Amino acid sequence: KVTKNITVLPGDGIGPEIVAQAQKVLQAVSEKYGVNFEFTEGLIGAAAIDATGDALPADTVTACQQADAVLLGAVGDPKFDNDPNAKVRPEQGLLAIRKALGLFTNIRPIRTFNALLDQAPIKPERLEGADFVIYRELTGGIYFGAKGKEGEDKAYDHCVYERSEIERIAHLAFKAATQRRNKLTLVDKANVLETSRLWRKVVQEMSADYPSVEVDYLFVDNAAMQVILNPKQFDVVLTENMFGDIISDEASIISGSLGMLPSASVGTGSSLFEPIHGSYPQAAGKNIANPMATILSVAMMLDHLELFDAAEDVRKAVDFALDEGFATEDVNKAAPQSTTAVGDFIAAQI
Amino acid sequence: KVTKNITVLPGDGIGPEIVAQAQKVLQAVSEKYGVNFEFTEGLIGAAAIDATGDALPADTVTACQQADAVLLGAVGDPKFDNDPNAKVRPEQGLLAIRKALGLFTNIRPIRTFNALLDQAPIKPERLEGADFVIYRELTGGIYFGAKGKEGEDKAYDHCVYERSEIERIAHLAFKAATQRRNKLTLVDKANVLETSRLWRKVVQEMSADYPSVEVDYLFVDNAAMQVILNPKQFDVVLTENMFGDIISDEASIISGSLGMLPSASVGTGSSLFEPIHGSYPQAAGKNIANPMATILSVAMMLDHLELFDAAEDVRKAVDFALDEGFATEDVNKAAPQSTTAVGDFIAAQI
Ligand SMILES: CC(C)[C@H](C(=O)O)[C@@H](O)C(=O)O
Ligand SMILES: CC(C)[C@H](C(=O)O)[C@@H](O)C(=O)O
Repeated sequence: KVTKNITVLPGDGIGPEIVAQAQKVLQAVSEKYGVNFEFTEGLIGAAAIDATGDALPADTVTACQQADAVLLGAVGDPKFDNDPNAKVRPEQGLLAIRKALGLFTNIRPIRTFNALLDQAPIKPERLEGADFVIYRELTGGIYFGAKGKEGEDKAYDHCVYERSEIERIAHLAFKAATQRRNKLTLVDKANVLETSRLWRKVVQEMSADYPSVEVDYLFVDNAAMQVILNPKQFDVVLTENMFGDIISDEASIISGSLGMLPSASVGTGSSLFEPIHGSYPQAAGKNIANPMATILSVAMMLDHLELFDAAEDVRKAVDFALDEGFATEDVNKAAPQSTTAVGDFIAAQI
Repeated sequence: KVTKNITVLPGDGIGPEIVAQAQKVLQAVSEKYGVNFEFTEGLIGAAAIDATGDALPADTVTACQQADAVLLGAVGDPKFDNDPNAKVRPEQGLLAIRKALGLFTNIRPIRTFNALLDQAPIKPERLEGADFVIYRELTGGIYFGAKGKEGEDKAYDHCVYERSEIERIAHLAFKAATQRRNKLTLVDKANVLETSRLWRKVVQEMSADYPSVEVDYLFVDNAAMQVILNPKQFDVVLTENMFGDIISDEASIISGSLGMLPSASVGTGSSLFEPIHGSYPQAAGKNIANPMATILSVAMMLDHLELFDAAEDVRKAVDFALDEGFATEDVNKAAPQSTTAVGDFIAAQI
């Protein structure tokens, strides 16, 4: 029996609850496909700070490095957000694990779900058929440049990019485009930022190697409109770290709920899979959070582990649950199911 | 007869066409209210580069400094966008005039228009009654920090903020909130950026001086969702330069057309009024661009010149045109009017 080592980082807020559902689904996959999933839990975020003082303890990093894949819940706790003087914060754990694993590409597929079309704030005719994927750079830019204060009253954050950082993610994005609809859109602010001009230049040069791919350039302010006005125009969207953060959360509106969107982060070492939503502290412990984004992240993980049929099963099970209206309150206001009930239901379909 | 000196910077693309309509409206105001508007034209953007090699010639700056107000069309030309090596670019003119006039606050009111509710991509029930104003910092942050290249393959943009830069715009935003619905939302990325933490700290401290104002903090990725999911929650939105650029363009979706949104930039010297849309080069010279955003910018200018009744007249004239469906194709696809016809129609209502 094949064994896959999965390091699980439940994290904060609703993290533990949703990750538990995803593990149920992996368990079901294990039984059906005869794969053995070995789970190792690690601490990250506020949970890690509370337990160890550190947002990413060293043994969490080691466990992730040794894993075949990492499954993350969510990180973040409001008790740190309004304290501009806090010395450690949960998000440092998230940024540190991205850096430690060399996860330079965050892949965020955006699609519509028939069962959710009517509840999206956008008119269904604008959305139907929208299907694109965001390639967000994840270990560079203003997130990781020098930052600090000069005295009490001045602060700085440096955005830096090197050609090699752009090339490695752009290659992945171009390749993805060749396997999809052959369109790549670079989102930048090349009319203002020097880093954006480097992005544009590198992508322009690389496009010669991918002659089948049509390349488009959009300023980020315009992109923030186009994502809502005409989402069907996109196939692969490539962008730097900060713009990717903003545009991908915004794009979640297309799906009808932030609770539906998975992501995969890949790079030089182990890959990491996590929902794009946050720790949703208001819902923590209430058994109401939507586990589907995490379960769909597990589907991306199964693809990554080359368990393609299992991945397909998971996606179909989620679609079935949606079609049956068997979903949490963000998706089915009228007759909501609990987090655990949705997890059980989906696992039972596998 | 009172004279007001208005420096007019038509700029690029549709700039000249829409500015001409706004001037017609000012002419009508002049006749009704016995004010004399003295117009001086200046070059900026690609138009200025083509004529002088410089995106903001010195005499444009002088003319703006001596004016009672500045009316700007739009700046930008695609021939520069895909040339990462261009030495001068139109946008430098725009950034330079903002800096030269000390325009540290860009005010962007976001509202719905009954005549456009049905054509917005968002369902009308989400939108009806949305009415907020974005205070975007305009002369600091990553737009104006050190930027450049180290060798051929590395680029940087520095984001820097000082307390005094935050305080001066925040005071304006807090004051605006006290004159509106007493709510201020700071949009930042304080979980990652040092500059954002300074913004949050300063705004937190200042809130003690504005006890009637309820202060809210939103991470920019979340804000990018909330603007579409629940725009009615906002009253005054305060944010730094880059985030303000993205969020305000996105928010234009609420109005149903980017062609409807005016802005005022204020600071230490002359104030500047411009539509938030760009130079829309595809439409240039075709007499199809919507002049309403520029005309509504003129209304903001009239308020600034303390010609409050005239400002009200202009707004009512625009509303009337909308109610009659007398509008360009972005607003009235079925029976569009030309740019000049809309300008004439609105001027005639004054
Ligand atoms: C929590 C935060 C640091 C993180 C980010 O900005 O990258 C989150 O918003 C995300 O998108 O994964
Ligand atoms: C043209 C560009 C430099 C400008 C900006 O980013 O400020 C524009 O998008 C705006 O919002 O006025």
